[in-house]
Amino acid sequence: MLNKLTLIGVGLIGGSLSLALKKAGYVKSVCAYDVDEVNVQFAKDTGLIDEFETDLAIAVRDADIVVIAVPVGAVADVALALKPVLGKDSVLTDVGSVKQGVVDAVTTAFGSPPTNFVPAHPIAGTEKSGARAAFATLFQDKRVMLTPTSESSDAATQLVADMWHAVGARVERIGVPEHDAIFAATSHLPHMLAYSFVNALASIDMSEEIFTYAAGGLHDFTRIASSNPIMWRDVCLHNREQLLAVIDTFTSNLSALRAGIERGDEGFLEQQFSSAKQIRDRYKPPSE
Amino acid sequence: MLNKLTLIGVGLIGGSLSLALKKAGYVKSVCAYDVDEVNVQFAKDTGLIDEFETDLAIAVRDADIVVIAVPVGAVADVALALKPVLGKDSVLTDVGSVKQGVVDAVTTAFGSPPTNFVPAHPIAGTEKSGARAAFATLFQDKRVMLTPTSESSDAATQLVADMWHAVGARVERIGVPEHDAIFAATSHLPHMLAYSFVNALASIDMSEEIFTYAAGGLHDFTRIASSNPIMWRDVCLHNREQLLAVIDTFTSNLSALRAGIERGDEGFLEQQFSSAKQIRDRYKPPSE
Repeated sequence: MLNKLTLIGVGLIGGSLSLALKKAGYVKSVCAYDVDEVNVQFAKDTGLIDEFETDLAIAVRDADIVVIAVPVGAVADVALALKPVLGKDSVLTDVGSVKQGVVDAVTTAFGSPPTNFVPAHPIAGTEKSGARAAFATLFQDKRVMLTPTSESSDAATQLVADMWHAVGARVERIGVPEHDAIFAATSHLPHMLAYSFVNALASIDMSEEIFTYAAGGLHDFTRIASSNPIMWRDVCLHNREQLLAVIDTFTSNLSALRAGIERGDEGFLEQQFSSAKQIRDRYKPPSE
Repeated sequence: MLNKLTLIGVGLIGGSLSLALKKAGYVKSVCAYDVDEVNVQFAKDTGLIDEFETDLAIAVRDADIVVIAVPVGAVADVALALKPVLGKDSVLTDVGSVKQGVVDAVTTAFGSPPTNFVPAHPIAGTEKSGARAAFATLFQDKRVMLTPTSESSDAATQLVADMWHAVGARVERIGVPEHDAIFAATSHLPHMLAYSFVNALASIDMSEEIFTYAAGGLHDFTRIASSNPIMWRDVCLHNREQLLAVIDTFTSNLSALRAGIERGDEGFLEQQFSSAKQIRDRYKPPSE
């Protein structure tokens, strides 16, 4: 049970976390800080949060946990602003999709990684963004990856893990480089492909007809292209090397497939599609 | 109301069409012909079809409509086998995802496009295949594209349209080249990307962890990689030029995005993602 949680940024993730913790009775009060006054007022009016402050020092005063839930590119400024006002007993965590960039930003602001700092990444979300998209069950049965630094205290790590357990998530630990490599492949790359695919279609003559005749499979395939552009811009900038590497792996695979189509290679095409189908069927969710 | 429909190939599409027509009371009897005896026996046992024949001449005798519902690559052989046995009053149609290849195959077999031949493409399906995947509501509120040839009679075209209306589909007409260009972009290309993406991930070190940590968005994105490999091999082979063209458009778009990531171009990345999001949001299905 937490007395006070401070949420910096009330978007889909932050807003859902706040709502879920309040519904679970795990926190007495959630105080939010958000640069978007319309968004944070909406969050208060709809009960996602209890109160909000426009002064960061007041917002974080006496907080058990401070959760940074802004796009990764904004973490550096938030960390610099937190340095003079964060209480020594407050645990600091985040929800970023990239972990090295967050660790670097906090380390730069604080001089070294604070012992009460525990980076985290909930593997949950939808293509929608902002407080309006928040809902209490977003993290139910979802994974949260903790990437504690070598300086993170056991007590702080445990507090962050407990918070995520309280909203129904499964908590796992992983190293920062492994995290960023895995999510470059499973999350960042498919977002790039979906964005690029939609833009490619829009560039074709008959693009109006193309989108009109889109079948159901296309809506699933492109859903992630509706995701928050700022968040994904920041992911690209902060996981650049890992993302470029997986884009190149993909491009080389697509290029080989293209060559197989061009030469009409039945055996190769069937083998490629069968292999992908086997893998995808093996890892598909139980609900399918 | 049809007395007899003959279905050549009882897969997801053929099986669902038969079931839906029977449920709608639109056909007295569906007779199937399928090279896979286990599959067609299953279809009969579960009531998807009324009977099956292993002799094509008997199967199509006195049929009001003969529906070819096999992978596009198998249409040429089916058309050759149909030529000597198809009654002059039987209307011939198909369900292929590619239309030029089907028209060419039927034209080759019959010498010229028969007046009772009306190519069609229901824009419906799932990633599953075979008679076991069939269900009666597959075509409800879905589009069916008719691509009548210059030889197709009005009566035959109307009969095929009526059949699709009977299962709840919306019928539209389009030219063969336009059809193949649009579906290269909206359907064939995303399947290539999904197959290639899954194979690329499988080629990376840590691929086990990669698939284990797959988030919800990835399952949606890769669902179409579970589709029938034979069907998609045939689509590639029969819509080659159009497919190569859209692969190249996509690759050039992805390459520009990659360059933007490499040079850390915030403005370009945000513009690319915002543009894709706007387009995708504009065309998203009402259910989202």
